[in-house]
Amino acid sequence: MAGSVATIMDYPLTLNHLLGRMKDVYPTQEVVSQRPDKSVLRQTYAETCDRAEKLARALVKAGVKKGDRVATLAWNHSAHLECYYGIPAAGGVMHTLNLRLGPADIGYIATHADDRIVIVDDVLLPLYEQFRDRMPAHRTVVIPFGGPVPDGMESYEDFLETGDADIALPEIDETDGCAMCYTSGTTGDPKGVIYSHRGMVLHSMVGAQPDMLNFSMNDCILPVVPMFHANAWGIPYAATMTGAKLVFPGPHLDADSLIAQFIEEKVTFSGGVPTVWLGIIQTIEKDPAKYEALRGLRTVVGGSAAPPAVIRRFQDFGITVLHAWGMTEMSPLGTVANVKPHLATQGEEIYFDYRSKQGYAAPFVDLRHRDGDGNILPWDGESMGELEVRGPWIASSYFNYPEADDRWSDDGWFRTGDIVTMDSEGYVQITDRSKDVIKSGGEWISSVDLENAIMGHPAVKEAAVIALPHTKWDERPLACIVLKDGESLTKAELDRHLSIDFAKWQLPDDLVMIEEVPKTSTGKFQKLTLRNRFADWQWGADRRMAG
Amino acid sequence: MAGSVATIMDYPLTLNHLLGRMKDVYPTQEVVSQRPDKSVLRQTYAETCDRAEKLARALVKAGVKKGDRVATLAWNHSAHLECYYGIPAAGGVMHTLNLRLGPADIGYIATHADDRIVIVDDVLLPLYEQFRDRMPAHRTVVIPFGGPVPDGMESYEDFLETGDADIALPEIDETDGCAMCYTSGTTGDPKGVIYSHRGMVLHSMVGAQPDMLNFSMNDCILPVVPMFHANAWGIPYAATMTGAKLVFPGPHLDADSLIAQFIEEKVTFSGGVPTVWLGIIQTIEKDPAKYEALRGLRTVVGGSAAPPAVIRRFQDFGITVLHAWGMTEMSPLGTVANVKPHLATQGEEIYFDYRSKQGYAAPFVDLRHRDGDGNILPWDGESMGELEVRGPWIASSYFNYPEADDRWSDDGWFRTGDIVTMDSEGYVQITDRSKDVIKSGGEWISSVDLENAIMGHPAVKEAAVIALPHTKWDERPLACIVLKDGESLTKAELDRHLSIDFAKWQLPDDLVMIEEVPKTSTGKFQKLTLRNRFADWQWGADRRMAG
Repeated sequence: MAGSVATIMDYPLTLNHLLGRMKDVYPTQEVVSQRPDKSVLRQTYAETCDRAEKLARALVKAGVKKGDRVATLAWNHSAHLECYYGIPAAGGVMHTLNLRLGPADIGYIATHADDRIVIVDDVLLPLYEQFRDRMPAHRTVVIPFGGPVPDGMESYEDFLETGDADIALPEIDETDGCAMCYTSGTTGDPKGVIYSHRGMVLHSMVGAQPDMLNFSMNDCILPVVPMFHANAWGIPYAATMTGAKLVFPGPHLDADSLIAQFIEEKVTFSGGVPTVWLGIIQTIEKDPAKYEALRGLRTVVGGSAAPPAVIRRFQDFGITVLHAWGMTEMSPLGTVANVKPHLATQGEEIYFDYRSKQGYAAPFVDLRHRDGDGNILPWDGESMGELEVRGPWIASSYFNYPEADDRWSDDGWFRTGDIVTMDSEGYVQITDRSKDVIKSGGEWISSVDLENAIMGHPAVKEAAVIALPHTKWDERPLACIVLKDGESLTKAELDRHLSIDFAKWQLPDDLVMIEEVPKTSTGKFQKLTLRNRFADWQWGADRRMAG
Repeated sequence: MAGSVATIMDYPLTLNHLLGRMKDVYPTQEVVSQRPDKSVLRQTYAETCDRAEKLARALVKAGVKKGDRVATLAWNHSAHLECYYGIPAAGGVMHTLNLRLGPADIGYIATHADDRIVIVDDVLLPLYEQFRDRMPAHRTVVIPFGGPVPDGMESYEDFLETGDADIALPEIDETDGCAMCYTSGTTGDPKGVIYSHRGMVLHSMVGAQPDMLNFSMNDCILPVVPMFHANAWGIPYAATMTGAKLVFPGPHLDADSLIAQFIEEKVTFSGGVPTVWLGIIQTIEKDPAKYEALRGLRTVVGGSAAPPAVIRRFQDFGITVLHAWGMTEMSPLGTVANVKPHLATQGEEIYFDYRSKQGYAAPFVDLRHRDGDGNILPWDGESMGELEVRGPWIASSYFNYPEADDRWSDDGWFRTGDIVTMDSEGYVQITDRSKDVIKSGGEWISSVDLENAIMGHPAVKEAAVIALPHTKWDERPLACIVLKDGESLTKAELDRHLSIDFAKWQLPDDLVMIEEVPKTSTGKFQKLTLRNRFADWQWGADRRMAG
């Protein structure tokens, strides 16, 4: 009947609106980029919008059709921001290649994505040349920062000039793809997801909110997180939506360069992985008086968890560290760990406890965690299960990779692979990765909790706890320990140390001394290597289990 | 081809997510309501969610089908909030009846909307009885605040109890209707619009942003704007999304009662029409020391423009007044007048000038203004034209009222009826209503600008400027003036006064003294009455136009 349908306009949620908004509402706001030679490029939002539209028209002229992938291999700078808007406005899907991967992996990814055009920083041409031949035929556009444009390639600036004003841009539907990223998982092939206009718009609307990242036109925002990592966490889109000043560091990501740019441009908000912030706080602490100007800075930390001690060191100096958690498959924002007002007033310990969790769900992200039998677990702060997520910016599958369809539950939730607890306030805490949790006699033991406790022992430099097969209990924990020079540690001493926080059945059955914990290129423990090394471990007489 | 579609979940934007979020993420947050007897009802978000879900199930049991209208006739309180979520969760369309209208109008509106159930405050039963018989057959549910429930009606609390947990709620599509409002225009029939779930969700996501209304879980929000006025400007939905404490004043909207509640509940944000705030600042200024606790309060003013002087008086005391502009047809948010950082530092006059405008567009609201020939005008701060709007929460038609389809342009924009200028920073300034602007020889003259200037003359108490037909110039302005007691004013004196700010051709051709300016029930000038009264005006020898 007539009355059942709302009388509201059918208006699509596309990035094109945000692009137009840059010019209509914030024409004079600045986009500041540091070039490879450390000189500074300044342009306005209006100029950025014009250039992005030129890029879009040039891409259409170059034959880009709806859904075609256009790759970038670039640092963080304004031309990359132009790609963020220009490629989707052309109907294309911006594929940000991760320059930290090896040439073979990048070649595989660019081939799998079928990238038609590659837009590359001139300073990254040496890397590009290492995988260019592994890709199918494509066109190369070079962003010039001073170097010559090689034969067979064209300059980005010349390419923009081909974007005549009379070239029509396609109509964009909000479910059209706008960008894609590949995960750099430690196992199996890299897998890609294609983000939608609608998803990125909603992600921006939610990400900018006060209890999320809190973006305003009064902010000056510097994303340290690379624009080739999950859309730089959506920061470029959310920042331009709110009219914030944007500052890009180019390739200069060392602590001194970042601090200099923070101070010079009066940055109010930044975001990056924990290692970046560790370097910065170490620099600050050497001479706090010198870095007074940094007080009041807000930062978001993601990628992996920041240790509570680091959060506290920043807070002590006057810099806010906000934990956020997400995944490439989630556009990426899932949760943030702001502290609710009634929890913030219960003392320092509780405050920092909440700050160190992964946080509560963003609006329109659904969370649940399930045990090994698929039962949905209570939000009691104790029950451990695998976190599953659902929402309007979360991937429903990988791009052309049906082999991994089991990452989605039968009822359509994405399985994150993170083992978590959920508390009654809705805060997520990651306790382990699902492949690392120890499944002992129907109960789960967090390898990460054990590692953190073991690393708290004064004799221990580093420790990894791995699950190994056990005839009676399915799996039991083995502690792999790197001792500090000249130290020693017995099983009994370790047990005594751990018994404060753990039940007897949770203690490692054995310990073994190793020289170092094997790690990935980003510093994460590579436990698979240890599991393979100790696959034939003979448990020491089951003495723990008899206890 | 396979790659053209994003790999993102199809997740609907419905109010049900926000309802669930109240319980999942903010279970212990408070909803505080002042009852008619001034006693206070406190319930948690979790309780509110449970009761709204019970209401939804009770409505389904009562036979409510997708799209059925369920009316409320109620003040601002937690049960009304339960209706905001419970009626849409049942698939119904919440129709908030405006208790300020006359019984005949309410009866017309409830009949036109075909309301099936009416949920009414017991204290409003006397009003309800005046139009009940004008409505088609329906069921009456009474929210009890102490009075008895009349025969043939049922108690809201009993009704909730019929909402058994095993009653299935319908699947909601994001384009389904969730609520409706009728405009109380001064001309023609009241006209309704049906809001969509998607529209209200997006309105909440945008409304909560820092440069819009800036809602956080740290806020305590008291909407003075009635919940029967355009969804209380969307405040209830946006506030619950962010986990803010909500405080409802019930029927007590006088300045003293509001101030008492602001202080008692530590309110941080409020919103209402200018007259509410005028009463509050007058009370504060009588004894500022007594109201110290109100410093830091943020308010949004809408409905009509707040005079710059009032904005400044609040600011001087320490209360921020934010101008927002919208319409019932816009869900209602269109623009807000926060001041951009580079404009805020150019001196007090410019600062308050921007604060007094209607502001810049919310993300995803498109604005343009066109002249009488349909030409799109430049954003130069001078060109006057009718404002037209487009966006995902803006009405595309009135509900069952095709006679008014000319309120939408051929290309689908909503014609607001406001005559505005737009400046290069994207700020809207309303200069007139389209029916009041004076169209003289192809140029437009703002009646409002002239009125404001005339009211600046020391002899003038009040003035309205109206357009009257003119043989040569189509229309010319007539100034209708109410003098202060014992004062006089000649045409020559008025011309001298106005010549500072206006060109000769913009000056009123004649002036006429009247006893008072006729006004609507909400205090707006009723110029139609004046135009009718002076319809046969004989212009004084065309002397102005010869000059």
